[in-house]
Amino acid sequence: MAGSSFGVLFRVTTAGESHGPANVVIVDGVPAGLPLSEEDLLPDLKRRRPGQSKLTTQRQEEDQPEILSGVFDGRTTGTPIAVLFRNQDARSRDYGNLAELYRPGHADYSFDARFGFRDYRGGGRSSARETVARVAAGAIARKLLAQQGIRLLAFVRQVGDISAKVEDPTRLTLEQVEATPVRCPDLEAAARMAELIETVRKEKDSIGGIAELVITGVPAGWGEPVFDKLKADLAKALFSLPAVLGVEYGAGFQVATARGSENNDPFVNREGRIATEGNRHGGMLGGISTGMPLVLRCAVKPTSSLPREQATVNQKGEATTVQTFGRHDPCLLPRFIPMAEAMAAIVLADHGLRSLSARLST
Amino acid sequence: MAGSSFGVLFRVTTAGESHGPANVVIVDGVPAGLPLSEEDLLPDLKRRRPGQSKLTTQRQEEDQPEILSGVFDGRTTGTPIAVLFRNQDARSRDYGNLAELYRPGHADYSFDARFGFRDYRGGGRSSARETVARVAAGAIARKLLAQQGIRLLAFVRQVGDISAKVEDPTRLTLEQVEATPVRCPDLEAAARMAELIETVRKEKDSIGGIAELVITGVPAGWGEPVFDKLKADLAKALFSLPAVLGVEYGAGFQVATARGSENNDPFVNREGRIATEGNRHGGMLGGISTGMPLVLRCAVKPTSSLPREQATVNQKGEATTVQTFGRHDPCLLPRFIPMAEAMAAIVLADHGLRSLSARLST
Amino acid sequence: MAGSSFGVLFRVTTAGESHGPANVVIVDGVPAGLPLSEEDLLPDLKRRRPGQSKLTTQRQEEDQPEILSGVFDGRTTGTPIAVLFRNQDARSRDYGNLAELYRPGHADYSFDARFGFRDYRGGGRSSARETVARVAAGAIARKLLAQQGIRLLAFVRQVGDISAKVEDPTRLTLEQVEATPVRCPDLEAAARMAELIETVRKEKDSIGGIAELVITGVPAGWGEPVFDKLKADLAKALFSLPAVLGVEYGAGFQVATARGSENNDPFVNREGRIATEGNRHGGMLGGISTGMPLVLRCAVKPTSSLPREQATVNQKGEATTVQTFGRHDPCLLPRFIPMAEAMAAIVLADHGLRSLSARLST
Amino acid sequence: MAGSSFGVLFRVTTAGESHGPANVVIVDGVPAGLPLSEEDLLPDLKRRRPGQSKLTTQRQEEDQPEILSGVFDGRTTGTPIAVLFRNQDARSRDYGNLAELYRPGHADYSFDARFGFRDYRGGGRSSARETVARVAAGAIARKLLAQQGIRLLAFVRQVGDISAKVEDPTRLTLEQVEATPVRCPDLEAAARMAELIETVRKEKDSIGGIAELVITGVPAGWGEPVFDKLKADLAKALFSLPAVLGVEYGAGFQVATARGSENNDPFVNREGRIATEGNRHGGMLGGISTGMPLVLRCAVKPTSSLPREQATVNQKGEATTVQTFGRHDPCLLPRFIPMAEAMAAIVLADHGLRSLSARLST
Repeated sequence: MAGSSFGVLFRVTTAGESHGPANVVIVDGVPAGLPLSEEDLLPDLKRRRPGQSKLTTQRQEEDQPEILSGVFDGRTTGTPIAVLFRNQDARSRDYGNLAELYRPGHADYSFDARFGFRDYRGGGRSSARETVARVAAGAIARKLLAQQGIRLLAFVRQVGDISAKVEDPTRLTLEQVEATPVRCPDLEAAARMAELIETVRKEKDSIGGIAELVITGVPAGWGEPVFDKLKADLAKALFSLPAVLGVEYGAGFQVATARGSENNDPFVNREGRIATEGNRHGGMLGGISTGMPLVLRCAVKPTSSLPREQATVNQKGEATTVQTFGRHDPCLLPRFIPMAEAMAAIVLADHGLRSLSARLST
Repeated sequence: MAGSSFGVLFRVTTAGESHGPANVVIVDGVPAGLPLSEEDLLPDLKRRRPGQSKLTTQRQEEDQPEILSGVFDGRTTGTPIAVLFRNQDARSRDYGNLAELYRPGHADYSFDARFGFRDYRGGGRSSARETVARVAAGAIARKLLAQQGIRLLAFVRQVGDISAKVEDPTRLTLEQVEATPVRCPDLEAAARMAELIETVRKEKDSIGGIAELVITGVPAGWGEPVFDKLKADLAKALFSLPAVLGVEYGAGFQVATARGSENNDPFVNREGRIATEGNRHGGMLGGISTGMPLVLRCAVKPTSSLPREQATVNQKGEATTVQTFGRHDPCLLPRFIPMAEAMAAIVLADHGLRSLSARLST
Repeated sequence: MAGSSFGVLFRVTTAGESHGPANVVIVDGVPAGLPLSEEDLLPDLKRRRPGQSKLTTQRQEEDQPEILSGVFDGRTTGTPIAVLFRNQDARSRDYGNLAELYRPGHADYSFDARFGFRDYRGGGRSSARETVARVAAGAIARKLLAQQGIRLLAFVRQVGDISAKVEDPTRLTLEQVEATPVRCPDLEAAARMAELIETVRKEKDSIGGIAELVITGVPAGWGEPVFDKLKADLAKALFSLPAVLGVEYGAGFQVATARGSENNDPFVNREGRIATEGNRHGGMLGGISTGMPLVLRCAVKPTSSLPREQATVNQKGEATTVQTFGRHDPCLLPRFIPMAEAMAAIVLADHGLRSLSARLST
Repeated sequence: MAGSSFGVLFRVTTAGESHGPANVVIVDGVPAGLPLSEEDLLPDLKRRRPGQSKLTTQRQEEDQPEILSGVFDGRTTGTPIAVLFRNQDARSRDYGNLAELYRPGHADYSFDARFGFRDYRGGGRSSARETVARVAAGAIARKLLAQQGIRLLAFVRQVGDISAKVEDPTRLTLEQVEATPVRCPDLEAAARMAELIETVRKEKDSIGGIAELVITGVPAGWGEPVFDKLKADLAKALFSLPAVLGVEYGAGFQVATARGSENNDPFVNREGRIATEGNRHGGMLGGISTGMPLVLRCAVKPTSSLPREQATVNQKGEATTVQTFGRHDPCLLPRFIPMAEAMAAIVLADHGLRSLSARLST
């Protein structure tokens, strides 16, 4: 495929650059009969939006979705749903010599290497602006999943060296996550994270972190045995987000030091349902869901754009410096939360539909 | 798609169960004109094969590939290449009550949940036996990539709490990796890893670890901007392997505690070529290769099959125990190495072909 | 896939209903560096537009395309190109009992059977309005192909029992085709076709016909050997257009009565280039282009919407009648011409890109 | 995709050349629980096999299928089913200067143009031998469809200028079709067809014809609205078969001379079920099935291989002649019948699975 689509049966295609006229997403394969309106997209879009607090960039985007197709009389029709987002004030800005410079940590050079030139305005296609389209698609997926009792919730697990303590992530509520602008439900840790973020901002720097994603209600039996394992598609979806350098699920990298005797989650009978004691397997065995909660974590790098001089080269390979003006989040984690949920929702909606044909109906 | 295929232009489809008549792979999209014979597949297959040392299972598999199509007069014809592997002694064994039991850490229960029943012989489709097909496909991909000077090399970075010291992984040789049965080029660490593996074996237990994968020679400009980022497809490929619970590249999970000012790799001019100082970005920015080496790591869980009694339930949900007889690697890492290389080679072969249409030829 | 996308490397995804807010197309995979603006889309869009002459429906559609992404500084960037078409006056109309009636020859009943309900306004997703998106995508494909000297031209070969005489279709010009509103380059036949169309209109009836499509400049070697034969993808593309009930290429259905000795086109040396005497094979052998012109024909049914009472049933299965008001082409052929060209262009752009990876570069 | 796969959820991938070691097919996406063994494949394979009568080639192929995977305890497991066909006596033959000659009507030249060289033995990948794999896949699809009461039956409608009279093709039985080696259920016509075929054979010539395909029991609501229309996928499937130069459904090319008032099939209530009077729409409206029988026709060219000298050129473009030795069907139609059924079965199995996700279950 040409690379801007994701999913097989629930299929998302995005288009749009940061400072072009608009971003668009087409979601094909949504079953007919799902109640849907722009209102359903707003909560997640609002969480993704820049400028929510001083922890995030102050750039104002309207992020007003317009559903162009696929919905009639308030319900999905089974035909593709297109959602449009107009971009703001795209034309008037001065981009200086950004066309010729390669910003460290950004895709400027690799885009040039691939395409020969690039839309350098605001990062063009590699800007996080593109995720507005994903979050809209994710909100549709999430609504579909909610009908089956599936709930996705992500939160900030770590910023810098500050880790949250969360007793049982599967019992967290959206309210607990949204209680602080950091989106960390451990209030004490959240306060320290906010402080740290404010500190790095003042130092014209940025800081990374870890997001955790918990998905409950997924029935056992979703996922394909070999290449399209549920874990593989979730990992691809999360790695397709900007700034993600690591993904793990269940016990994750801790399995490196684990023994099998402690790492295997014994199957048990829990009130007549087969379940496991413990969940080091993060809800997936053989790439197929077990009915236990899915638990994943993403490592998110510190923002590459910094309001300070950084050494780099220009297109000719001459040494120079670059400094990012404009406003950028000193920590990407708070706004990453709804993006991670959206991508996971898209994967699950897809695999949920795919699971319908796994066996003969009887 | 139906889940047993991977790739767009270089497309791999596998079929086969552990104890069925055979495993097969069809590799479609290999350009015409590549010299190829069964000989080319043997080295990687031999590295994957069980029974190479006492660190790995003593089960004998022949793993003799037969190329059935797509090669004529010693060269690929551009048509699909099918490779056949007959399975051995599949019929005669006694599987006891394995059909009814759910082994902890295995896909038995999730397969049943998906398909209603399963081929329980030796793990069926979820057995690592399936990777014989992938390694053959990977060997073809690798040969294609070698023509462009691309080299893939993986090694064992960690087993349990023993970590290898490797000064510059991009300069490792295959010989250094293959020098020990552990496939760890730090000989001192390798010896301790071997000891640890022997210990857990005696304790009827198993141990996890971390594999590292280094790919050199990838030109800048491979990968698609949004969903099919090179990092995303590599992650999917590696997560599609059994036992992988985490993947990271470049600085990986360490970015959580990093500042942008230290995490950004400055662009520099290295002998007329644009490169970066440091490689915390693991050779990919915006999901597109930068020309720097790709560096990835995978967390591999301890073997789930243990030669000791483990608590579990049967299909009816009744508590029982299961003990795995037969021979299993107490540590999956040594044999994981060629699998990781194979999957990465498949991804790169695919993206290399896809890069051909990125811009108008001039 | 979810069904609203076409192509592998040059990939077109459409969304939109006849009377919804807008129609959209995303064209992914266009190589970077192609000069492109809305101006390039207008000529084909104008040819597709209703109301061009009294032979076609008088409904006014603006069909003003807006490129939303993928173009920067007048050139394609390699990222997906989204094109938006706002629909007109969608809201105000009265659709009577169309929601409950099944119009003969239309998709009303089959949509209901599939999705449970439908957007009945103006035919919803099954309306020919959707082809505005295809024609825009086709115009982009056509521009890409023109760079390689490939030219696509369709014309009306037959309306009712009136057939055009065209000595050498491969030498026709666009001007000759566009000389009459019927788009038949045989002026005498065109006049009689126009007369026939006017007659059936007055009789509140409609008439079918045949379109012929000639493509020159396609190099030998495009197309995949087995399922994705060039002829197969062209046929799928043309059959995906509304009202097409038959497709043939080269000698087409006449091969039924032909002998091999007369049907085989002998290979000859034409000025140093391998060609064939005659072109009964329509430019494709084994599903791969031979360098000879591609020649295809499509059978297009008479318009199903008729301004007269037709017997039918409603959703409850009760007998009733339906009469179509509003304006409809009494003959679809003239406006079908640009649609056929567009779909063929999309297929060829895709296969052109795919051909880049057929063999090792040397 | 790389071109040797077909279908989305019921996905068929073939590999193999005419005179290589084997042909293989992998069928991925077959739901678990379908009873299946090699026996189920034999009837269709036998009908496809060369040498069934003196009307078809006398070349003996064993066509013995071996199921390698995806079936356990007599039922499909939901994992991919691989079927192997060994080729016979591939090695010993003398192909003369076939490597350098371009046979008229064959894919020799277009393969060379695409891939730079080709496996010229027996036509290599472009040989009809490859259809053995398709017929096996089709037999699996057919068995799946039979569970839902769907029946596919093709027959020879025309050879040369001899047309069969068949009162109601939807009531034909397999026995009636198989009653003659021509596979034409009109016995009188069948006798004349056999005579004509015998005549052209004696004249070292060949003859074309038309096959008709009738599919009953398809429920209303299968097919996707836009590109993946059921008619479009059926057309692609049939055009992907060798020698097909035309496909039509329902009234087909006769719609060109039809008026809408006579071409529209009025909806009626037939014993409580919505149906149509007449079936000029061939069972599909808007590309979606209506519940009426699907009726399609394919134009099949006369065999290109002729046991007489034909003028051609060699790879250098020098004029020469070629004569085909060995045995070839003077008329492809009888053996085309099971191939057409197989491809249609594959399409329907795919769309049947896809229809499962069209709307929310209620």
